[in-house]
Amino acid sequence: MTVSTRLEISRAEHAQRRARLAERLDAQELDVICVFGPVRVAYLTGFHFAATERPVGLVLTDAGDVTVLLPELEGDHFAHQCPDLPSPLTYPEYPGGGSGRHPLTVLADHLRAHHSGRRVAADHDGYENRWGYRGPALSALLGHAVVDGLALIDDLRMVKSPAEIDLIREACRWGDHAHRLMQEAIAPGVNELVVSHGASLQATRDLLETLGERYVPKTREGLPANTMFISGTNTAHPHGLHRNAGVQPGDVLVTGAYGVVGGYESELERTMHVGDPTPDFERYFAAMLGAQDAGLAALRPGRTCAQVEADVRGFIEDTLDLTRLVRHHTGHAFGLEGHEHPFLDLDDHTVIEPGMIFSIEPGLYVPGLAGFRHSDTVVVTADGSERLSLYPRGLVDLIIPA
Amino acid sequence: MTVSTRLEISRAEHAQRRARLAERLDAQELDVICVFGPVRVAYLTGFHFAATERPVGLVLTDAGDVTVLLPELEGDHFAHQCPDLPSPLTYPEYPGGGSGRHPLTVLADHLRAHHSGRRVAADHDGYENRWGYRGPALSALLGHAVVDGLALIDDLRMVKSPAEIDLIREACRWGDHAHRLMQEAIAPGVNELVVSHGASLQATRDLLETLGERYVPKTREGLPANTMFISGTNTAHPHGLHRNAGVQPGDVLVTGAYGVVGGYESELERTMHVGDPTPDFERYFAAMLGAQDAGLAALRPGRTCAQVEADVRGFIEDTLDLTRLVRHHTGHAFGLEGHEHPFLDLDDHTVIEPGMIFSIEPGLYVPGLAGFRHSDTVVVTADGSERLSLYPRGLVDLIIPA
Repeated sequence: MTVSTRLEISRAEHAQRRARLAERLDAQELDVICVFGPVRVAYLTGFHFAATERPVGLVLTDAGDVTVLLPELEGDHFAHQCPDLPSPLTYPEYPGGGSGRHPLTVLADHLRAHHSGRRVAADHDGYENRWGYRGPALSALLGHAVVDGLALIDDLRMVKSPAEIDLIREACRWGDHAHRLMQEAIAPGVNELVVSHGASLQATRDLLETLGERYVPKTREGLPANTMFISGTNTAHPHGLHRNAGVQPGDVLVTGAYGVVGGYESELERTMHVGDPTPDFERYFAAMLGAQDAGLAALRPGRTCAQVEADVRGFIEDTLDLTRLVRHHTGHAFGLEGHEHPFLDLDDHTVIEPGMIFSIEPGLYVPGLAGFRHSDTVVVTADGSERLSLYPRGLVDLIIPA
Repeated sequence: MTVSTRLEISRAEHAQRRARLAERLDAQELDVICVFGPVRVAYLTGFHFAATERPVGLVLTDAGDVTVLLPELEGDHFAHQCPDLPSPLTYPEYPGGGSGRHPLTVLADHLRAHHSGRRVAADHDGYENRWGYRGPALSALLGHAVVDGLALIDDLRMVKSPAEIDLIREACRWGDHAHRLMQEAIAPGVNELVVSHGASLQATRDLLETLGERYVPKTREGLPANTMFISGTNTAHPHGLHRNAGVQPGDVLVTGAYGVVGGYESELERTMHVGDPTPDFERYFAAMLGAQDAGLAALRPGRTCAQVEADVRGFIEDTLDLTRLVRHHTGHAFGLEGHEHPFLDLDDHTVIEPGMIFSIEPGLYVPGLAGFRHSDTVVVTADGSERLSLYPRGLVDLIIPA
């Protein structure tokens, strides 16, 4: 089987990303960027790893040269995943493994030795405080300020390549499939956790069987096909937690399902009802569906995120008169992470471009009754948008027999 | 059912934590601390939430007064979980929801209005860059430096209370149970992901049935009982990723299993073999077990983390002559997070105290063959330590029939 059939980003595309970032450095008259965010390191190299308290960092120069800082224990793993990159800088262990030196000093020494006097940017001023990590700011080690370069990388991540869109499209298929299995398994009395993870597991089994060696795991955590739902009045909180009780007739469910393929996620959420819905439920459901339609119609290149949000807010205010039930904006970008910049929000003036991926998920939250929210994965096309999650949206398809 | 039987930290204990932090502020001549880490906010308040790009922050004064910054959408959720805390400061949405103001300015305005001229610490200089979040440093908004106060909180977290240890002990029971189910399900040909998540799901079902309403979910993600394993030469990398292929006779497995109860995790890892082990395997297995015994014997109050690590390294060097196979230190603290400060490392001079929880997991990694690592959850007692994960450690109990 050739590499091209594997569902992952190619080495050539990772190299292209680094070249584009190097160009952006040059354009900003920056010489070097240090990258500490684990997802950003993976984005630029294809090196996916378990992010812990052991700092990992990447140094990229405006000439496109790359140096990666790693704990020794990740050395083999890195060589295996990134045979095209130079040998990493390593340190024995965090906090020091007996070297008496903090790992970040290894990176600082490298910068001083090779890039002295040059303008240094970073996505974060040192390694993030993950899992008990404590360490100095990079600027403190270097003795001079570091330019905030987070947007230089994350702005590149906003517009997805055809290969990225293909992976997200494939992830959507498995989100849809997992959701279908979950819907079939939900019935009065079942437990939220048990039924949703059962569906996730079956969908994962199906994915592995269907994709075989084309599926390349990028993590030690989680499944490539996932579902969950919350139920009852918990749904009235946009980020309600699980309820440890069985599904009841009359419950409203707000679900979530996603695939993860080549490290890329999809998004799908549905509002469902157990048993015959009440007229109240039907009314709010229809209102929510209308708001989502407004969002889907509003998303196209050349507009800003704020304009999309304004359209949806306008619909909810003028047509529905339900602004009081809004608790959050219309959606967010995503890809390697479940939420990414930019956001479909009145205060985000990012111009929308073809290849951007957004969730469209305006919600209505009725206190004491329930939350109403569908979410879909949508890609911006040359002249509009295309929905990639294809799960049914209508009420008739989203009722659990009671 | 009374609140006291629920498997979670009480409101009184959360209040006690805040009082202790306030005392520490006072002792350091600090007036106010801002806390942005989601786990630290949960530690201090009992408010568990889905951490996203929407900043959440806590302001605690040296008088013990607390103010929480939240997005409006978390308001109900907060009031429900923390009825004893004052109404939060809220902002409409991130990036701004039409307010035209970055959410962090709401916090900065509060600090200026109520704590002008006072000494401000923070666990991070602004909200962390999670999920597409972009924002100013708190120090930039305030126009003056902010003292690094991360250790003030995380040093409190190092020593667990009796209630915390009880939750971790309960989590260990479910880690052990999940591991047992996984071991029973592993056989030649099975897929790593499918078999381990199947065991996680069954263990979760058993947990929910056994604990009933005593189990209080603290997250929307993951299961309260989890297992995973990696197999074959992948195990030679300490953080190897999943292999998308069936288990094979002759494979070495390195497993992991943990429970999550009241937000607290446990840790359990075992090295296993599919079919009859080779003499080489037996030799390295025995060496690893000896190293873990050395770690268990070395852990007691009054010593430093570095001394524990020195004992283990000494055993591996002097008795085993296998230092070349070491890739990481002996273990780490944990609790609300899977790894926490401090670390059993030659460069960590933290003094060990009763109530600290550590993993003891020295590993030996034989290139081209396999990794050898057991990990157990251990609590430091008044005069030594006690193992809380009780899964069998001997080779005879860890062989999968082939």
